[in-house]
Amino acid sequence: MADVLQKFTSSSPGRALLRRLGVQGPVVLPRHEPGRPEIAGPVLLGGTDAGRLRPALAGILRGAGVPVLRGDGADGPDHGPDPAALVFDATGLCGSAALAELYEFAHPLVRRLPVGGRVVIVGDVPEAAGSAGAATAAHALEGFTRSLGKELGRGGTCQLLRADPGAEQALDSPLRFLLSRRSAYVSGQVVRVGPPVGAHPSPRAGAPQAGRTVAVTGAARGIGAVVAELLARDGAHLLCLDLPARREELERTAARIGGTALAVDVTAADASEMIAAHLRERHGGVDVFVHNAGVTRDRTLARMARAEWDTVLDVNLGAVERITAALLADGPGGPVLRDGGALVCTSSIGGIAGNRGQTNYGAAKAGLIGLVRALAPVVAGRGVRVNAVAPGFIETDMTARMPLMVREAGRRMNSLGQGGLPVDVAEAVRWLAEPANAGVTGQVLRVCGQSLIGA
Amino acid sequence: MADVLQKFTSSSPGRALLRRLGVQGPVVLPRHEPGRPEIAGPVLLGGTDAGRLRPALAGILRGAGVPVLRGDGADGPDHGPDPAALVFDATGLCGSAALAELYEFAHPLVRRLPVGGRVVIVGDVPEAAGSAGAATAAHALEGFTRSLGKELGRGGTCQLLRADPGAEQALDSPLRFLLSRRSAYVSGQVVRVGPPVGAHPSPRAGAPQAGRTVAVTGAARGIGAVVAELLARDGAHLLCLDLPARREELERTAARIGGTALAVDVTAADASEMIAAHLRERHGGVDVFVHNAGVTRDRTLARMARAEWDTVLDVNLGAVERITAALLADGPGGPVLRDGGALVCTSSIGGIAGNRGQTNYGAAKAGLIGLVRALAPVVAGRGVRVNAVAPGFIETDMTARMPLMVREAGRRMNSLGQGGLPVDVAEAVRWLAEPANAGVTGQVLRVCGQSLIGA
Repeated sequence: MADVLQKFTSSSPGRALLRRLGVQGPVVLPRHEPGRPEIAGPVLLGGTDAGRLRPALAGILRGAGVPVLRGDGADGPDHGPDPAALVFDATGLCGSAALAELYEFAHPLVRRLPVGGRVVIVGDVPEAAGSAGAATAAHALEGFTRSLGKELGRGGTCQLLRADPGAEQALDSPLRFLLSRRSAYVSGQVVRVGPPVGAHPSPRAGAPQAGRTVAVTGAARGIGAVVAELLARDGAHLLCLDLPARREELERTAARIGGTALAVDVTAADASEMIAAHLRERHGGVDVFVHNAGVTRDRTLARMARAEWDTVLDVNLGAVERITAALLADGPGGPVLRDGGALVCTSSIGGIAGNRGQTNYGAAKAGLIGLVRALAPVVAGRGVRVNAVAPGFIETDMTARMPLMVREAGRRMNSLGQGGLPVDVAEAVRWLAEPANAGVTGQVLRVCGQSLIGA
Repeated sequence: MADVLQKFTSSSPGRALLRRLGVQGPVVLPRHEPGRPEIAGPVLLGGTDAGRLRPALAGILRGAGVPVLRGDGADGPDHGPDPAALVFDATGLCGSAALAELYEFAHPLVRRLPVGGRVVIVGDVPEAAGSAGAATAAHALEGFTRSLGKELGRGGTCQLLRADPGAEQALDSPLRFLLSRRSAYVSGQVVRVGPPVGAHPSPRAGAPQAGRTVAVTGAARGIGAVVAELLARDGAHLLCLDLPARREELERTAARIGGTALAVDVTAADASEMIAAHLRERHGGVDVFVHNAGVTRDRTLARMARAEWDTVLDVNLGAVERITAALLADGPGGPVLRDGGALVCTSSIGGIAGNRGQTNYGAAKAGLIGLVRALAPVVAGRGVRVNAVAPGFIETDMTARMPLMVREAGRRMNSLGQGGLPVDVAEAVRWLAEPANAGVTGQVLRVCGQSLIGA
């Protein structure tokens, strides 16, 4: 029973095994609280000699009010206060030998990071690097990042920001997010930042979504309700959608955040038209649409009924496709989804790595990844961005119904040694929806504590 | 101790957990034996109505001498002999609703597969699909494939072949490999096939490398020695390279397969020039170069000495870069690596997912992925292909030195429930080096039994 696993994971070889696999004993992750600074300082900023982004990164940090230590001199590795975060500009690497500069920077510093410390490495996009040697070095950063993420421990996270040419103008929002306590359950990830899509306001403290309309499906409870809450706190008007059977709960959620409710089954034949018409008529359109509603019907393929296939494909993927099409279709005054808007889909680790008993769910959640990547360039001309989150093990009603052992394994098999909370996914959605985050589109952000599981 | 894990994994909840995670009890994997047919038949071939590749796939199977059952009629799902493999043409999907055809095909058939059964799904490349809807459906296939790989059990494997426009002429070798017993430890993978690079002979039984010269580093023992053996069996002359300290073992290995030996430390200052000159002068060039030599120096970054960083980066990455450059440099009569040649690098799951204590190894092995992707288009004009294998847990000297618990976990945490053998990696290298495999370049093939671990 559970105590066998408990006994094993508490034993010395068990702990050694979990440590070796990058699984750390859990700490309480420092998370963002309204009114507190988003980024813990100071940040120690370093980089290679060839790095082209150090001035831009320093400017962003100063703009965020964070003390910046320089990684190359008087307040460098061996002097001055301990840093709360490390940022390293690894752009411009010409060959793999230059990677030693990253080793020299990080080696003496990682043990000085506090609980919840942050490491962000900024590199080139391998496909955009000028030579095979530069592409090799740029891709090596990924293996370094994912390895370091597995050994930081104590709630520390490590990410790689890949900057396309022209990304300088859009690095502010990604760097702030990854350094902040809002990304508490995001680690070992690679985020690509391109030149800004459409207009790109600076990050605004307080109300980045002021005056905007946001719609969230599956918003009555769980992750969807927290997404709605965070975006309402950012100043948006929220339209909360969920099943008619959850109307009362939905209306309470909407009322609590000053939003409105629309009870609709997203798989109904007229749902997409109905939602689009509601947004157009009542709100004059929508700025952010969060496809959060989802269901599972787990069964191995050999035993899966056609209805279990159809339901999962339709709720998780078909409805998303139809609603998206309705939001983007031309109409009086243009599409319902306004210029400069954002779509956020909810994929899953299961859509990346597959999962036993989830050929239906894995297919649907992988389909969303295909949708996000294919749609992003199509709508970029209007300044619209399309992204997805891919949650790992999150403490929700869905995971609470898992068998105990599976639940325990899911909680432990990640670099942070614990399950995430709905707010961790909601913070990622909030960031992807943030108007200032103009350089991130067509991407899938895992919110999984760097789960071991992947493809 | 080990018996705690043993006890847990043998207990009912333990088995349930491992099953749920897609970890199956091990079976003896059917592997290829010389003189026996490569593909177990019959193969049941199905596809969507829109599929464009069914005739080509049927032709390949008939050319390989495999009985083909049709998945749509008299000898379909409920009649005729049980298939040894399923092949489904899922190209041309216009939208996610059409995915139900894949469910209808596979649902009744998967339980009729034998031990070591094969499932190969052929789909479009999402980036090349004609619409967002087509890209969505094409990407959904990946989640389906990876999920089914985790539930087949009994040594069964499931892969997705992504066919670019023009790939028809190059599908033969990939389809044969994935259906054969040569791919026993490859599962849950996505292989992209493009139009052929350079000349593209048909697969030849017997001696596909006849008259060609192949060089393998780290060939004295382990995986490298098996790679050399398989390629010698395919008709190549083998130049076996390894450290001077292993000269005797190296010479024995080379003699056993009728090859020659060159003792050289690949990290020596003059190694790349020396190897290139040797190949040019003694062999008139080289057709296939396999970068197999590698070392680890595991240590967390905080404790890692600079020498541990440098050694791992230089052996696993720097030497590969320098030797590759020397092979591709212009010289009298052209580059040492001949037109129509192939380079195969040895990456690792650690280069994909990162690994605790391996910031050095993870960076180096990820760098190789960057190298392979960046170099492939550069050399395609000469018909040269560049690929990598990424082994998971393989039973070698390196893994034999792991702590017992880590070793046991590595063996179990994959869909086939066991570690791979050196021959499994060697078969993948052999396939990537096969002249007929002209449509596969710039890719990384995991040989990991569908390890749970990924990014």
